[in-house]
Amino acid sequence: MNTNPLSQKAQQTLEYLQKLVTTLPLFQRLTDDMTAIQEKADHFRQFQDVLILGTGGSSLGGQAITALQESASPKLHFLDNIDAHTFADVLKTVSPHKTGVIAISKSGNTAETLMQLLTCLKVWDETPLAHHFLIVSEPGQNAIREVASKFSLPTLDHPDDIGGRFSAFTVVGMLPAFIAGIDGQSLRQGALDVLANLKEATVHDSPALVGALTQFSLCQQHVNQSVLFTYCDRLQLLASWYCQLWAESVGKKNAIGLAQGTTPIRAAGATDQHSQLQLYLDGPRDKFFTVLTLAQQHSLDSAQADFFDHPALTTLHNKTMGQLMIAEQMATIDTLKANNCPVRELKLEQLTPRSLGSLMMHFILETLAMAHLLEVNPFDQPAVEQGKKLALDYLSRAGGCAKHGAEVLIEE
Amino acid sequence: MNTNPLSQKAQQTLEYLQKLVTTLPLFQRLTDDMTAIQEKADHFRQFQDVLILGTGGSSLGGQAITALQESASPKLHFLDNIDAHTFADVLKTVSPHKTGVIAISKSGNTAETLMQLLTCLKVWDETPLAHHFLIVSEPGQNAIREVASKFSLPTLDHPDDIGGRFSAFTVVGMLPAFIAGIDGQSLRQGALDVLANLKEATVHDSPALVGALTQFSLCQQHVNQSVLFTYCDRLQLLASWYCQLWAESVGKKNAIGLAQGTTPIRAAGATDQHSQLQLYLDGPRDKFFTVLTLAQQHSLDSAQADFFDHPALTTLHNKTMGQLMIAEQMATIDTLKANNCPVRELKLEQLTPRSLGSLMMHFILETLAMAHLLEVNPFDQPAVEQGKKLALDYLSRAGGCAKHGAEVLIEE
Repeated sequence: MNTNPLSQKAQQTLEYLQKLVTTLPLFQRLTDDMTAIQEKADHFRQFQDVLILGTGGSSLGGQAITALQESASPKLHFLDNIDAHTFADVLKTVSPHKTGVIAISKSGNTAETLMQLLTCLKVWDETPLAHHFLIVSEPGQNAIREVASKFSLPTLDHPDDIGGRFSAFTVVGMLPAFIAGIDGQSLRQGALDVLANLKEATVHDSPALVGALTQFSLCQQHVNQSVLFTYCDRLQLLASWYCQLWAESVGKKNAIGLAQGTTPIRAAGATDQHSQLQLYLDGPRDKFFTVLTLAQQHSLDSAQADFFDHPALTTLHNKTMGQLMIAEQMATIDTLKANNCPVRELKLEQLTPRSLGSLMMHFILETLAMAHLLEVNPFDQPAVEQGKKLALDYLSRAGGCAKHGAEVLIEE
Repeated sequence: MNTNPLSQKAQQTLEYLQKLVTTLPLFQRLTDDMTAIQEKADHFRQFQDVLILGTGGSSLGGQAITALQESASPKLHFLDNIDAHTFADVLKTVSPHKTGVIAISKSGNTAETLMQLLTCLKVWDETPLAHHFLIVSEPGQNAIREVASKFSLPTLDHPDDIGGRFSAFTVVGMLPAFIAGIDGQSLRQGALDVLANLKEATVHDSPALVGALTQFSLCQQHVNQSVLFTYCDRLQLLASWYCQLWAESVGKKNAIGLAQGTTPIRAAGATDQHSQLQLYLDGPRDKFFTVLTLAQQHSLDSAQADFFDHPALTTLHNKTMGQLMIAEQMATIDTLKANNCPVRELKLEQLTPRSLGSLMMHFILETLAMAHLLEVNPFDQPAVEQGKKLALDYLSRAGGCAKHGAEVLIEE
């Protein structure tokens, strides 16, 4: 019997994960029927543009997945903020008669999403609303269902047993995926592949457990940041999705009130080699690095540079942009290692819906494992309610926002 | 005479900044003539699309500034990466005959930018190249000048005494600004306003010095992250520019080899309230917060919600999206304060070229002050050369990248 405390923790965490696979709705619902979602998606595929209203967990999963869209139409616009300038700019570029609007809010009471929806309903008031709009939320009494009822808008149910940041494999991710023409079944299959591997895994060969244990050990040595370096532009939105998943699941107090968690940070390779890498290599040793690489790069024509003298050019001769990207990702990994920075590589052979699904499920399992190791509840977000209430209090008093001297200007 | 060590440091740092104002080329060149840049910009304004090739300091300043563009044309595409998939997608959407290409590299030897440029030259080979292309780099012998010479492309000089991340007020930022129709003189005036204030400032009323001192004190108490929370979508690219400025200037070893610096982190308000705020409020006390707010918000029509019963809707009645954004930014500041998180507000009354210029110069001064306090050289980036060399080594051997099993796939 192994009495090393970390080994014991590892074994317990693996058992926790393996038990979750058979009990957690998130995992159980990976085989739910999606006919209703597909039907609604087919309806929205007729539009030229589709606005997807919603924020946080109601938006990031769909954004991460639809980054794989190959076709130009319909054009999906994820409006996840309430910047009126941005909102007005998007409204200027779309034609209501050719545009569908989907509002997603799990609770149905998110102020930002309701404001977006009320704004759109005014703009679309001369179109048949039930044809253009769709509401996604939990069943039951909530504000967005009241809007749907008032305007007779069609609805889809958001599962009430899966939290927003874990909802990418539900309607929240699948509806945008189908609209974008992405094979959602493959995405789910990628997730199921990872769960199947977990069932057989030991503490030594579960990538999610090993990843969490590494980060758990490092954060006890004051490594309080986790950098996700993505060498593929289409994975940058996955990184945003991961940042919410990790931050909201592990960033909180444990049972005895001690603050837990590490800060997830997105870095875009190769771009951030020219922006952040100096700090990463030479600054404080407070970061763990995950480098997400792509083995097969899209090939543009190779460069012709044999008629130049300068070595910076001749080195590029007969090489493709994809080959340069591969050289850059290798160099970053090796440079981090050479500077004794803790680093791992997650390599995708190809970026497909199935490999993306596997990657997302890997991150979900790793996050759940980390929460278990830190002894925090991965499914709540207790700290943000205070701010939500305060925002609505200030809004109620708006017009006279004298305290901060804020005012609203009408720009024409 | 004040013998408190921090007060002494503060006084020395203020004197350092005030001396820089009269000696640093970055500041002296704020009144340089821009006629040549304006002329080239006028030429590029005739195009429908303009591609701006370059990365890091050759791109982020222009991106931050042109986020203020009001007109839809010309459409600027900042290509700051070498993801061939993205690159091919952009090439698909533009017509070479209606598109200009500007390549910016201070050193003239940046592999990524050279690869982008060689790729574009092949695609544009049936257009008059000198009409469509422009090269911006230091004068002298370098690779990109060799390309310019070979193809007879026009050039503009990048000042050789201003480093990339400090170059936003030079041709690097001004050329894209003028192409986008933004008043570059106002932007520079905003920077000059801040320098004028600095000349008169004491240690108590210099915002840049106070900001740096606060962060210097906090980082000695293990606060090793600096979150910039922007409540305005058009300031998100400014945040990316700031992250490079801060990370590359302060993230390095001091004279006795101790690693210095804090990690800059971008957060988008209100969106990241639904993604990162749980961690910020309830996680470890390792962050300093700068909340960048906008007092005057663009006004879309107010919401009509008097016919609803649910309080989440009735609260929105007669309120605008801008008012909700203002309430959110106030609530975030007050919630961070209530949770004893170190937070400051930088408030813009309006977002104009002049206020943006002031803000950028504030961040430059604060960064220089922080570097002085940490006793590091703000102008170098010694750690990244190793990786650059390694990337070119790997590229030379590409075709046989056997070590990492990498290969290039031709996607059609």
